[in-house]
Amino acid sequence: MIALTQAERMTTEQYIHHYTPTKIDGDFVGKHVVTVEQFARPDMEVLFQAAYTLRKRIHAGDRSVLDLCAGKVMATLFFEASTRTDMSFQAAMLRLGGEVIATSGGVQFSSVYKGENLPDTIRAVACYADAIVLRHPEVGSSYQAAYYLDQLAERLGHQSVVISGGDGVGEHPTQALLDLFTILDYKDSLDHLQVTMVGDLRYGRTVHSLSKLIAIYGATHISLNFVSPDALQMPTNVVKFLNESGIQVNQTSELNEVIGESDVIYWTRIQQERFANPADYDAIADHFIMTPSVLAGAKDEAILMHPLPRKHEMGTPADHDVLDNDARSVYFNQMENGMFVRMALLAKVLGVREI
Amino acid sequence: MIALTQAERMTTEQYIHHYTPTKIDGDFVGKHVVTVEQFARPDMEVLFQAAYTLRKRIHAGDRSVLDLCAGKVMATLFFEASTRTDMSFQAAMLRLGGEVIATSGGVQFSSVYKGENLPDTIRAVACYADAIVLRHPEVGSSYQAAYYLDQLAERLGHQSVVISGGDGVGEHPTQALLDLFTILDYKDSLDHLQVTMVGDLRYGRTVHSLSKLIAIYGATHISLNFVSPDALQMPTNVVKFLNESGIQVNQTSELNEVIGESDVIYWTRIQQERFANPADYDAIADHFIMTPSVLAGAKDEAILMHPLPRKHEMGTPADHDVLDNDARSVYFNQMENGMFVRMALLAKVLGVREI
Amino acid sequence: MIALTQAERMTTEQYIHHYTPTKIDGDFVGKHVVTVEQFARPDMEVLFQAAYTLRKRIHAGDRSVLDLCAGKVMATLFFEASTRTDMSFQAAMLRLGGEVIATSGGVQFSSVYKGENLPDTIRAVACYADAIVLRHPEVGSSYQAAYYLDQLAERLGHQSVVISGGDGVGEHPTQALLDLFTILDYKDSLDHLQVTMVGDLRYGRTVHSLSKLIAIYGATHISLNFVSPDALQMPTNVVKFLNESGIQVNQTSELNEVIGESDVIYWTRIQQERFANPADYDAIADHFIMTPSVLAGAKDEAILMHPLPRKHEMGTPADHDVLDNDARSVYFNQMENGMFVRMALLAKVLGVREI
Repeated sequence: MIALTQAERMTTEQYIHHYTPTKIDGDFVGKHVVTVEQFARPDMEVLFQAAYTLRKRIHAGDRSVLDLCAGKVMATLFFEASTRTDMSFQAAMLRLGGEVIATSGGVQFSSVYKGENLPDTIRAVACYADAIVLRHPEVGSSYQAAYYLDQLAERLGHQSVVISGGDGVGEHPTQALLDLFTILDYKDSLDHLQVTMVGDLRYGRTVHSLSKLIAIYGATHISLNFVSPDALQMPTNVVKFLNESGIQVNQTSELNEVIGESDVIYWTRIQQERFANPADYDAIADHFIMTPSVLAGAKDEAILMHPLPRKHEMGTPADHDVLDNDARSVYFNQMENGMFVRMALLAKVLGVREI
Repeated sequence: MIALTQAERMTTEQYIHHYTPTKIDGDFVGKHVVTVEQFARPDMEVLFQAAYTLRKRIHAGDRSVLDLCAGKVMATLFFEASTRTDMSFQAAMLRLGGEVIATSGGVQFSSVYKGENLPDTIRAVACYADAIVLRHPEVGSSYQAAYYLDQLAERLGHQSVVISGGDGVGEHPTQALLDLFTILDYKDSLDHLQVTMVGDLRYGRTVHSLSKLIAIYGATHISLNFVSPDALQMPTNVVKFLNESGIQVNQTSELNEVIGESDVIYWTRIQQERFANPADYDAIADHFIMTPSVLAGAKDEAILMHPLPRKHEMGTPADHDVLDNDARSVYFNQMENGMFVRMALLAKVLGVREI
Repeated sequence: MIALTQAERMTTEQYIHHYTPTKIDGDFVGKHVVTVEQFARPDMEVLFQAAYTLRKRIHAGDRSVLDLCAGKVMATLFFEASTRTDMSFQAAMLRLGGEVIATSGGVQFSSVYKGENLPDTIRAVACYADAIVLRHPEVGSSYQAAYYLDQLAERLGHQSVVISGGDGVGEHPTQALLDLFTILDYKDSLDHLQVTMVGDLRYGRTVHSLSKLIAIYGATHISLNFVSPDALQMPTNVVKFLNESGIQVNQTSELNEVIGESDVIYWTRIQQERFANPADYDAIADHFIMTPSVLAGAKDEAILMHPLPRKHEMGTPADHDVLDNDARSVYFNQMENGMFVRMALLAKVLGVREI
């Protein structure tokens, strides 16, 4: 951590460079979770084994899971809406026997005292909660939150942790973790896989984080196919990170070049609100649509993933009905896995040693 | 269930005709609750006995009730507001030891990803929750939800249930169940009762469902008095259903013809937002007002019910104060009973065999 | 309690004169909490001892605290936003093992049935909850709520209590209790203290209640310094109350006259929305700013308190960073103490005899 010496407080985004979150390095307890770069492969293996075990225990109706986080409180602090991330974390904490607090009317309703900033809000919440799930539109917000929570911990004598639930166009680490868990759940290993990501790869946060996480996890003979319009290609720094990790990357704008060889097809949302340039949105809105006839070109043993929610990038509602009944579509399982991966993560950072 | 073969997905309302919810038929476990027509009299008797027992246990401070649904999660999904139904279900689940999740800022705040439809939202929530209470402005929404939840259950290997918390001008089955429970709580039997329903009987969802439920429950020498302006009479299909069930129906626009003989007086809300024709609203807004002087015409042993909230259909706030102190007014007890009936229903569908 | 005989229901504010909340007088069970005037010093001592014990137990990870309110339900009913009060009460109840219900989308979202008044809403919620935390913009609202809850209790046969979470410009008793707890936490006794309150003392609800509470608690050789612009002085009735209680009061508009002698410096929020006259706001907005250089004038062993949230009355964000690292700044501890004081209060009114 770099000491603050300037007269002005840094901008939220600057905290990415000035606050270095602690690596997990075999011990999750009391650590903030703000980036996939905190995780090494052994950490993921521990986490995924815990998620797998929790899934079995919950599906078996094992009530002793409720002892794991009894007495712990998680707060949700969502400055932008995300029904899935929000409810998934809520359910995760409650199924561990913990408790959840939130502002009754959502953050917007509560911000009558205009001008309160994130450092103050996050510390207020940390006076009441052991863990805070933060969703915020600004890149770097979870780093800033972590920085101020560490300062508060020195004063209060106990540490609350922040878990990022998405930082604007920045990172969404738990989404990447659940995505990788789901791939491993169906494919057992990343070795020799072709993973194809399709759509807006430029602004699509989930595919950035997932790509990085795959590189960190490591695999032999894996290749990533990035399919997008030219203007919406995967950022250079992500491609560079992958190349340096020895991952073969293939960039194209033609899905039919790769769909027939893909083991994992990861379709992405098109989030119009993230496009600075309307032309970029138009370039993708009517192309890169997954429909039953597109899926027909995929292998029988391929899996089709999507972070959901979906819109017309998966065709019409009638198309949805057909896709949803295809055995290759695993996006609802992926969504359920999100709850189990988040359960594992919450339990670990809140100090549960045995799951 | 009729297979979907058409290219277009059905409208929400069409699901009423294409999805047949399973009858309770002595076993509540894992069943959706979307219409009073799923219930036969023995099912109601089991449910009401459970509600009665739970009320006694809660009032006695019996903490073992908290074991009944420990480890289960209920989600509330309210696309329109209903403070009572919402809070009543929340309290019911929590008093059973279960947990509740909701979108932090309400559904409106969450719908930034415009265009997500109910089938996707309900399945997302079902990945996290064992039961979903759905309140939605469209008729047929809970049927559609049940249809898609059955599809999801095949994929995930476990069933989440939907409980209707009101479908637009359609049904509100748990309201009808708590209303009937309350009548039986005070009158022990429906036999030989005169039940008088007053107000907007055309759009008033609660009186439709309650009338049907009374018919299904069955009674000897019961008669229903329907008091409304001519334009707002009980729909023909409900009257027909009652006649076919052997219930005597008396329709009038003059309350004073029947109030003196009534054992149960069920006053209804006037929900201006449900009126397509403003003239219909005007026809009722200044008439059919329950006041202390109107109640003076009722029998000493009559009970006055109302689904609440109330507005000027119960006069001024000063009128409220007088009515509320009248021993015949049981609408607050009715409201409390709602929580106990919902506790019984949740426990039953979530697999509790002994209460 | 004065019987209602008038034809019109009283205004909310009139209930302050017509409803007398029961004194605690050694027994908290089943009592509403609407004003600091219900508390005598021995009641505060019992409450603070419980808060102190609960803080130790929670910090030690003692899970048996979860047994204290198991099976009890608290509802939050916030007609205006207050993130801290809301979350603090939620966390308090959940850490006691109780449960919390709220309207899913906040009160505004729920008020589609326009015209429902507080007496009806509060009684609806009381059908489901054992305790209700009410935040309402109108002075007297918690008195009115208490009045109607007493009426409901006669009908239902069991009592729900209301705890005020702030009545407009009226009272906010739990804020005053946590403030006094915090002073005693650092200073052990009020005797011989100089307590300095700074800012908008005319509309600042917290300083009114805290001043009264200090007077009720009693101390020898305590003096209160009230520092404000002339137009925003402490109301005469509060000063009179203090004088009659033998507390020395010193009113000034010059902070530097008193800061060097102060043991407790209580800085206040400037809530623009509470100012009827914009000139009053302008008179204070650019003065009475706490900054590091102002704090430099305080004693080493002084404590700086603030109810939070804060805005520019504590300078720039960079000023915040410096102030927050000053050992004298205890406002985050004060905020955390709020949760423990509310835990103690909830446990006591809900019938916990031993903590």
